[in-house]
Amino acid sequence: MAVLGTSARTFELENGVLERVASTTTPQPVIAIAERRVSEVEELESCEWIVIADQISDPGNLGTIFRSAEAAGASGVVLTPGTVEAFNSKVVRSSAGSMFYIPVFEDITIDEVKQAGFSIVGTSSHEQRGSRPFTEASLTGKIAIVVGNEAHGMDDAELVDQWITIPHRGRSESLNVAMAATVVCFEVAHQRDNAN
Amino acid sequence: MAVLGTSARTFELENGVLERVASTTTPQPVIAIAERRVSEVEELESCEWIVIADQISDPGNLGTIFRSAEAAGASGVVLTPGTVEAFNSKVVRSSAGSMFYIPVFEDITIDEVKQAGFSIVGTSSHEQRGSRPFTEASLTGKIAIVVGNEAHGMDDAELVDQWITIPHRGRSESLNVAMAATVVCFEVAHQRDNAN
Repeated sequence: MAVLGTSARTFELENGVLERVASTTTPQPVIAIAERRVSEVEELESCEWIVIADQISDPGNLGTIFRSAEAAGASGVVLTPGTVEAFNSKVVRSSAGSMFYIPVFEDITIDEVKQAGFSIVGTSSHEQRGSRPFTEASLTGKIAIVVGNEAHGMDDAELVDQWITIPHRGRSESLNVAMAATVVCFEVAHQRDNAN
Repeated sequence: MAVLGTSARTFELENGVLERVASTTTPQPVIAIAERRVSEVEELESCEWIVIADQISDPGNLGTIFRSAEAAGASGVVLTPGTVEAFNSKVVRSSAGSMFYIPVFEDITIDEVKQAGFSIVGTSSHEQRGSRPFTEASLTGKIAIVVGNEAHGMDDAELVDQWITIPHRGRSESLNVAMAATVVCFEVAHQRDNAN
């Protein structure tokens, strides 16, 4: 029972134990048990800017979104109903620990975020009414960046206050949702730095 | 033998054939055979700006780098010796087709790129001598963005004309190399748009 720079109790395991307990075939040599932190909708109000992962089904993409949002200084990530569970083991792994440093709000709708006082910024790979390149949009203030499935119908689309696009110079398909989130999060960070 | 919008010959396969031929368990319902395009070092000289994937071992990361570079309008991607093979099947899949739209130069050193007239821009997660945040650096002109292993020793580091960093606001680890490449490529695209 050594302590590795924390107050947590640590145990050295016999050969083979980790391999049986972990969910991957060749696990990292360290494993931890942590309490799941649950953020309630009320806590949203004190957030400055957030990312909404809207109906993201791929765990790797959601993990990368956590990582980008955290690295860019977002105050939280909201998962709408239909998004893969935040504590899915693949999400946790691909978040590379970042999800333990940023509040995660599960099962919250875009409507609830708007009611908490956020301006809703929709990202789209296609032109939308009044959409602007992300570098020309104003991304300061209390904003929520929606990534993932674009607004599905009028109900969702009506909630969007501003549409942004990432101009694409190439001939291939659009960026995937994790890459798009990364690019936009760092533009938000840049604009907010300059605004302060 | 139908033709699906191309002049390529197409074949409908019997049930089960695709599953045996493809390298994934549940392949996409279409497969193509394409000639591998090889770009020679001499073609580098006509490139405007490029990305150097330096000793990238993860196929998914390299595929994403192709995708970002192509989407941001880069003229090519250089793979240094030690980078995973460009036509590794995992690289091809994760590039989502983008690598067929951008010249790929394999087995070329940073030194050779510099000799082809490029200014070498090193990306680093740590402060380097004279490094600047990527949004404050000048990323126009004939530049080569190096992503991946940071310069390993004095030989490589001496080749770098300008170091850039991606400021990190969070508490977790730095971005992975694919995310960093995506963010920087779109900043290059943005600066070049404004310069024109």
